[in-house]
Amino acid sequence: MYPRGVKMNMKKIVVAGGGVLGSQIALQSAFCGFDVTIWLRSEGSIERAQPKLLRLKEIYLNTLEAMKTNPAAYCRGFSCENELSADKINELKQKVEDAYDSITLTTSYEEAGNDADLIIEAIAEDPKQKIAFYQELAKHIPEKTIIATNSSTMLPSAFAQYTGRPEKYLALHFANEIWRNNTAEIMGHPDTGQEYYDAVCEFAENINMIPLKLKKEQPGYILNSMLVPFLSAAEALYADGVADFETIDKTWMLATGAPLGPFRILDVVGLTTAYNIGMMNPKASDPDTIEGKVAAMLKEKIDAGKTGINSGEGFYKY
Amino acid sequence: MYPRGVKMNMKKIVVAGGGVLGSQIALQSAFCGFDVTIWLRSEGSIERAQPKLLRLKEIYLNTLEAMKTNPAAYCRGFSCENELSADKINELKQKVEDAYDSITLTTSYEEAGNDADLIIEAIAEDPKQKIAFYQELAKHIPEKTIIATNSSTMLPSAFAQYTGRPEKYLALHFANEIWRNNTAEIMGHPDTGQEYYDAVCEFAENINMIPLKLKKEQPGYILNSMLVPFLSAAEALYADGVADFETIDKTWMLATGAPLGPFRILDVVGLTTAYNIGMMNPKASDPDTIEGKVAAMLKEKIDAGKTGINSGEGFYKY
Repeated sequence: MYPRGVKMNMKKIVVAGGGVLGSQIALQSAFCGFDVTIWLRSEGSIERAQPKLLRLKEIYLNTLEAMKTNPAAYCRGFSCENELSADKINELKQKVEDAYDSITLTTSYEEAGNDADLIIEAIAEDPKQKIAFYQELAKHIPEKTIIATNSSTMLPSAFAQYTGRPEKYLALHFANEIWRNNTAEIMGHPDTGQEYYDAVCEFAENINMIPLKLKKEQPGYILNSMLVPFLSAAEALYADGVADFETIDKTWMLATGAPLGPFRILDVVGLTTAYNIGMMNPKASDPDTIEGKVAAMLKEKIDAGKTGINSGEGFYKY
Repeated sequence: MYPRGVKMNMKKIVVAGGGVLGSQIALQSAFCGFDVTIWLRSEGSIERAQPKLLRLKEIYLNTLEAMKTNPAAYCRGFSCENELSADKINELKQKVEDAYDSITLTTSYEEAGNDADLIIEAIAEDPKQKIAFYQELAKHIPEKTIIATNSSTMLPSAFAQYTGRPEKYLALHFANEIWRNNTAEIMGHPDTGQEYYDAVCEFAENINMIPLKLKKEQPGYILNSMLVPFLSAAEALYADGVADFETIDKTWMLATGAPLGPFRILDVVGLTTAYNIGMMNPKASDPDTIEGKVAAMLKEKIDAGKTGINSGEGFYKY
């Protein structure tokens, strides 16, 4: 077992990839006091990552400012305490500024890998790119480095062999808007060492996440393993003409006390994601099946630009 | 189409069956001003129904009394207004007493059927018993009578032919604890007349329910069509050893903002019901399948008396 307090030894965190989640993981980790480097594939990737980080910094600062007057603005990612004085909030705002300034962006494996304690891989969901990254990375990191993938759809066992350190490789899966949605699903593959699993759980806690521990590999982790069949059932009811989507949402909310029904959740998840998940099922290509009707219903909305909350309209208007 | 205001003409409601839901539907309908008769199969059934009604009356009275001082005690089944004066609550308590006293219990088809506007069938989930009931009932009711089944698991098209009035037959499905859980799923079969469907929707509103309208037949209605795959997915994660049930609940609650995770919901639904639903799948009889592991996991808890919230323990202790 890792000695207790190993978390104190984790200093340098590398995030590979500067996309939606990569930039969030990087800023959140820097905000929580880690020395953060973002590794990117090209100078072009660096140019695309910079405005994302800047926008995130503004979201962090604005949300903190809002917390001074509006208790509902509170996000646990900033502090486990939900009653903060204006002075304390100003301190946190300064920490955001410092975190933003402290992040290093590099395309160099050497610079990223040098003395890295934890590398969080958040690059494209493309097995070939991931394999190439792991193989090159393995040449430039010290023995101690733990590697975690944020992949939503792939299993760590598919890549462990390419990392050169299967026992120090596992999945650490974040939700979007990490500062508000603090779940971190942590999943090893059969050869992940328990001490490295535990170290990553501690890291997750240290960046104000709530570790959700999986005991074995599971496609879709915990959340999507439930969310996908639930949303699919709701989509089927609507696409099959059983009820209006508003009625379906109302039924779920009244019966379970949930704040959101399945079609509100679909608008948050994004209809394109729901469509892509649905299309993994071969039946979705047959318009006579219920899966095919669901796919057609989603495609019609996507083609009309109604992809969810981010586009201003999905099932509902925003 | 039925003329608007037809609801004013519905006076006499017959509830067939005095079980958990039958007694609730009867008292709620009487409380809302309807003339209610409970039809029961035998004198023994009458003796079993009476203490249920008395216990329900006490729950209604105690809950109303609690509403005087505790806003959280409010139940929409009593009033659509959630801020009631003590005087108004006392009036409602008197209505509960009057409603309880007004209910007629009978084993006579003639007495029940005579001048009935709506008969709500809430007898055992046994097709043979339902068919025998409908066939005998048909001999004793006037042309105007609408018949609704509260069946959770069967489709109205399976019984319509036995009622002698398929166009006036449909499903009206309540949730347990009708005074608090005000959903009424309303589902016709292909030959249900729209005017009778609408009349039953109005009736549901008149007893303070929220009508949830299905446009076509669907096994499991709206709620169970989503709840069953959702709960099954959660059960599978646990039975397969992917995560603790507490972690699974926490994941769902954190990610969706829901007040209850799937294992809390299972404790409310009852593990026996979940087990019976699972056993409808032939795979559940094979211990090597995940369905079989779920069934074994549930059976172990049921055999230990841990059937859910009503027994004081299910997944959680109460």
